Amino acid sequence: MIIVMRRNATESEIEHMIAEVEGAGLKPATLRGTERTVIAAIGDERKAGDLRKLESSPGVDNVMPVLAPYKLASIESQPTRSVIQAGSFAVGGPVVGMIAGPCSVENEEQIVATAKAVKQAGATALRGGAFKPRTSPYSFQGLKEDGLQMLATARDETGLAVVTEVVSPEDVELVSEYAEVLQIGARNMQNYRLLEACGKSHRAVLLKRGPSATIDELLLAAEYILDGGNPSVMLCERGIRTYEGHTRFTLPLASVPYLQSKTHLPVVIDPSHGTGHASLVPAMARAAIAAGADGVIVEVHPEPEHAMSDGYQTLDFPAFAEMMGECQRVAEAVGRKL
Amino acid sequence: MIIVMRRNATESEIEHMIAEVEGAGLKPATLRGTERTVIAAIGDERKAGDLRKLESSPGVDNVMPVLAPYKLASIESQPTRSVIQAGSFAVGGPVVGMIAGPCSVENEEQIVATAKAVKQAGATALRGGAFKPRTSPYSFQGLKEDGLQMLATARDETGLAVVTEVVSPEDVELVSEYAEVLQIGARNMQNYRLLEACGKSHRAVLLKRGPSATIDELLLAAEYILDGGNPSVMLCERGIRTYEGHTRFTLPLASVPYLQSKTHLPVVIDPSHGTGHASLVPAMARAAIAAGADGVIVEVHPEPEHAMSDGYQTLDFPAFAEMMGECQRVAEAVGRKL
Amino acid sequence: MIIVMRRNATESEIEHMIAEVEGAGLKPATLRGTERTVIAAIGDERKAGDLRKLESSPGVDNVMPVLAPYKLASIESQPTRSVIQAGSFAVGGPVVGMIAGPCSVENEEQIVATAKAVKQAGATALRGGAFKPRTSPYSFQGLKEDGLQMLATARDETGLAVVTEVVSPEDVELVSEYAEVLQIGARNMQNYRLLEACGKSHRAVLLKRGPSATIDELLLAAEYILDGGNPSVMLCERGIRTYEGHTRFTLPLASVPYLQSKTHLPVVIDPSHGTGHASLVPAMARAAIAAGADGVIVEVHPEPEHAMSDGYQTLDFPAFAEMMGECQRVAEAVGRKL
Amino acid sequence: MIIVMRRNATESEIEHMIAEVEGAGLKPATLRGTERTVIAAIGDERKAGDLRKLESSPGVDNVMPVLAPYKLASIESQPTRSVIQAGSFAVGGPVVGMIAGPCSVENEEQIVATAKAVKQAGATALRGGAFKPRTSPYSFQGLKEDGLQMLATARDETGLAVVTEVVSPEDVELVSEYAEVLQIGARNMQNYRLLEACGKSHRAVLLKRGPSATIDELLLAAEYILDGGNPSVMLCERGIRTYEGHTRFTLPLASVPYLQSKTHLPVVIDPSHGTGHASLVPAMARAAIAAGADGVIVEVHPEPEHAMSDGYQTLDFPAFAEMMGECQRVAEAVGRKL
Repeated sequence: MIIVMRRNATESEIEHMIAEVEGAGLKPATLRGTERTVIAAIGDERKAGDLRKLESSPGVDNVMPVLAPYKLASIESQPTRSVIQAGSFAVGGPVVGMIAGPCSVENEEQIVATAKAVKQAGATALRGGAFKPRTSPYSFQGLKEDGLQMLATARDETGLAVVTEVVSPEDVELVSEYAEVLQIGARNMQNYRLLEACGKSHRAVLLKRGPSATIDELLLAAEYILDGGNPSVMLCERGIRTYEGHTRFTLPLASVPYLQSKTHLPVVIDPSHGTGHASLVPAMARAAIAAGADGVIVEVHPEPEHAMSDGYQTLDFPAFAEMMGECQRVAEAVGRKL
Repeated sequence: MIIVMRRNATESEIEHMIAEVEGAGLKPATLRGTERTVIAAIGDERKAGDLRKLESSPGVDNVMPVLAPYKLASIESQPTRSVIQAGSFAVGGPVVGMIAGPCSVENEEQIVATAKAVKQAGATALRGGAFKPRTSPYSFQGLKEDGLQMLATARDETGLAVVTEVVSPEDVELVSEYAEVLQIGARNMQNYRLLEACGKSHRAVLLKRGPSATIDELLLAAEYILDGGNPSVMLCERGIRTYEGHTRFTLPLASVPYLQSKTHLPVVIDPSHGTGHASLVPAMARAAIAAGADGVIVEVHPEPEHAMSDGYQTLDFPAFAEMMGECQRVAEAVGRKL
Repeated sequence: MIIVMRRNATESEIEHMIAEVEGAGLKPATLRGTERTVIAAIGDERKAGDLRKLESSPGVDNVMPVLAPYKLASIESQPTRSVIQAGSFAVGGPVVGMIAGPCSVENEEQIVATAKAVKQAGATALRGGAFKPRTSPYSFQGLKEDGLQMLATARDETGLAVVTEVVSPEDVELVSEYAEVLQIGARNMQNYRLLEACGKSHRAVLLKRGPSATIDELLLAAEYILDGGNPSVMLCERGIRTYEGHTRFTLPLASVPYLQSKTHLPVVIDPSHGTGHASLVPAMARAAIAAGADGVIVEVHPEPEHAMSDGYQTLDFPAFAEMMGECQRVAEAVGRKL
Repeated sequence: MIIVMRRNATESEIEHMIAEVEGAGLKPATLRGTERTVIAAIGDERKAGDLRKLESSPGVDNVMPVLAPYKLASIESQPTRSVIQAGSFAVGGPVVGMIAGPCSVENEEQIVATAKAVKQAGATALRGGAFKPRTSPYSFQGLKEDGLQMLATARDETGLAVVTEVVSPEDVELVSEYAEVLQIGARNMQNYRLLEACGKSHRAVLLKRGPSATIDELLLAAEYILDGGNPSVMLCERGIRTYEGHTRFTLPLASVPYLQSKTHLPVVIDPSHGTGHASLVPAMARAAIAAGADGVIVEVHPEPEHAMSDGYQTLDFPAFAEMMGECQRVAEAVGRKL
């Protein structure tokens, strides 16, 4: 932690801050510059509580943390990349994981047909929502346990691992019976009770970045799960909210190399939510793989025009198959495969 | 709903969209312009599902909703402004509600002393967190039920209504025993299970805007509570995430007059989270009242430098008392009082 | 400047950075922490070029500046607040400067009528664009020198100082003949040739913040003008671009107290561009004054519905007069007057 | 243009708007829905001035444009993709244009060495700034005409086309003598005088997107150049400003497919400014090509650590050569080459 004093800070204000640093269990080093005094607090600042509060102390200009606030998720705690195995599905190794399926499970015929089509095109996991968090109370809220059963049927028929969202701590056990991967949606990235419940699960977790979360906040959310005892966390970049209006969210693919420099956890990209328009999805799926993503999750539906949710960003079967061919070639160009 | 076709849309694509609009229970009106064809879908589009999915249909350029997606929260459903009464505390009438207290309840002495000081300065409700959603799993997580009891003690000694956060549906009942107002934090604005549970409570709800939520999303979150049967919802603008780095969030005070033109629900401003720096709080509290806010919620602590959370944005007692004097004068200037 | 080394930085990488800091004319202080090594560079880092380039050096994690990059604009170089006098118009003292007028000068009748109306309502300066930077090449581009002459006529008839935009360095002399205040628009905040030309002018300058400029960038743009020899700079916050779609820009009023803590230059707020909707302007003008703004600039037109530009955010005469009464009361509440 | 009336709009307000639409030369079609009345204005709304001003008319809720505001840049005006030829350099055809070189030209040795190295690695154009717009007046401002001459020397020795920035209308002629491509920087995207001057040049133009410009604003800036008579415009996405702090800007690669669906002009990506960190550049260059970019522009310097500007985002020669090999493979995977 670096504490920058105001230019006109008094000696007693400086002394006071030195005492505060010591009181927090850290070792102060005081640098009296030509322009102002800087106090460095040496030691593990993460154990010392939130020292930014010292910004409200007299004579302090600002307080700058030096260490990343997460530990278990950090590449410094584990320099080799994690490979997450979930049933037949693996993410983090040489094979790029391709997860595909509808936004919502609507009926058995729809989910089984989609599972077969995406498996045929090369996908390695099936997505599909049974519990749907919806912006409007008047929107379709999902088939719940019936939907989970349909997903299980689709898995039985194709061998694809199932990725599905869990929206509440009390549902974690139920969803874990049916799915290989528990998805935590963007709206729930900071639902700490849910993170804690997933931390106690034996299932892998796909944790989506909140649309205004920083990378540090995403890694701290992952830290909740890791700290709970579950090491199988995949991070998912699905776009952030910016002033751009022509896409639903802005998909910052630089998250891929940046995350890979900070954490050992695998990184999955969601170009469907990340763009909000089916026509933009294939280009961004290719780009994600070229950037080094460990996985891609894409919305696919037999008939996007009549999907019960997210139709505008959903590929039909032929578009998905074409995209998979392109992605295969890009994966090979960067030394991986699908 | 307005469907704008591409310039080169074919006649059969246009016919197809007309059929889709009819299939959704709406009445199509087709306008063949000099540049392109536009199809207006007449009727209550909110009953017709999410028609934006038609954007993925062939020949369609874009789809623009005409109606706001919320109903009960809309000023069109109730043209007179709602006044929310919660114990001795009222928001939405001529008196601007002033809610003050620490980020976290730390011990009985702290919360009682703060309650007395803010009451003395003119506050009408006491805030204080017992259940704390924290970004890091290593941060202080709150005193839970013990904290609620301390809040109740502070209420008994001062008569102030208690506003405290609830972070999980299963805690709604417990928190309702101790608090007059259930606060839903920004991170939980789209925790729909929690919204539904608050919708069934008899307690008033203070619903904070998520840091990347649109105003429509905030009003749809309120709609979940209203639709559940609880009419007592106060909206709280607490700042949005933007590229500005010198404040923790960006506090868009234009939300006050904008919300008041769209909804009958009262609007409360949080200048503490909205700025993240104690030195900026009083100016923004005054500005909020000048803009017409129905309430202000501010963090106050006996000793911000040693607060267990949010110290950098917390006022001490003298600073709060001074701010209250300023706010009183501004309130009178706009025809209200504290 | 604080240089944070990576955890696994080698001794020779640390030695290399120490040498780089010395090479830049600064004095290194090396802090070997339990977690990583930090090198503080003591001295005036602003003279040392952009040291962030050291981030590309081996073993470096990140580089954090300690000093603000601007000097003349800094409150540290001048602790008393600047009062800018421009003809009959002053900004920065106890009187809040109210600047009003149309987006574009359209004809003499329009500008003279507006000048009379806003003067009558209490405005102290007249705005009006003669050179119009327009997003589209097909939009009205302004009356140019004819417009300047009309503004001068309006000044002669009312005594109001004239504030008008200059869009190109070669026009600075011409505009200076007609106007008391040269306005630099948001799109030109980083047009350095224009800033330099205004730095050589004897006229006061109203410098608008670019819609994605940081506060540091705004103050550095002001620094260009101050460094050129012109001390009469007013800063104007007119809103930033964020994801908010219901307002044209997001008006962050916390800029007022924040700027006042960092610079001695006066701060003017533009609620017209800051909201983009006439109905939101009065509330934000009141809020700006309550927050401590030194001036407010507002678009007013005899008939906004038929204005040649910006009609949607422009007040008519009765609305402006009503707003002025409200602002007067708020100004008095915060110890100022209009 | 679609005008949505308020729910309680009166008949005379509706009649008034119909008259306004007719007065603007458009044909009104009035749709009386169950919820509210909508008036569609049929015809080329771009000829009718900025009709958003009607939002300030009584009874109007909002006004939604239907047509894109640009014409010449639109894919509707030219359905085949433009190929821009500038000396030996072409962008928009099957070969992805690779532009590389230092942020600033510092001396002849530096620029010639860089030109040889990037040519050797496969680049097809040389970038280098002689006129430097700098955020701080205290930063290096470029070698000006001396720098242009050094660029010409580097071209003579390598055959690479020269891309260099022009910051002022009066420099367009001078820069055109030395460079094949005039670069308009992000800060100048809305410097309309400069756009007009480039519109009269015979040189190709690389137009960078402003960091808070919308895609429509970028295309309208291009429209200024096209409308001036110069058809050779390349668009450059270089990142937008968002709340992300770990990258200098956020690089939204979805701009590539989106722009290609709206305009015939080629699209170049700048991963150096788009990320601000050398370590993130190669991944984003690969991703840009996978997304379908027509060109990539990258900062390269013999010794980034000692560059006079932008060192933190600049590759050295070995890193650039390695990146080019990767990009070559990705280009082939998407059916193109370097």
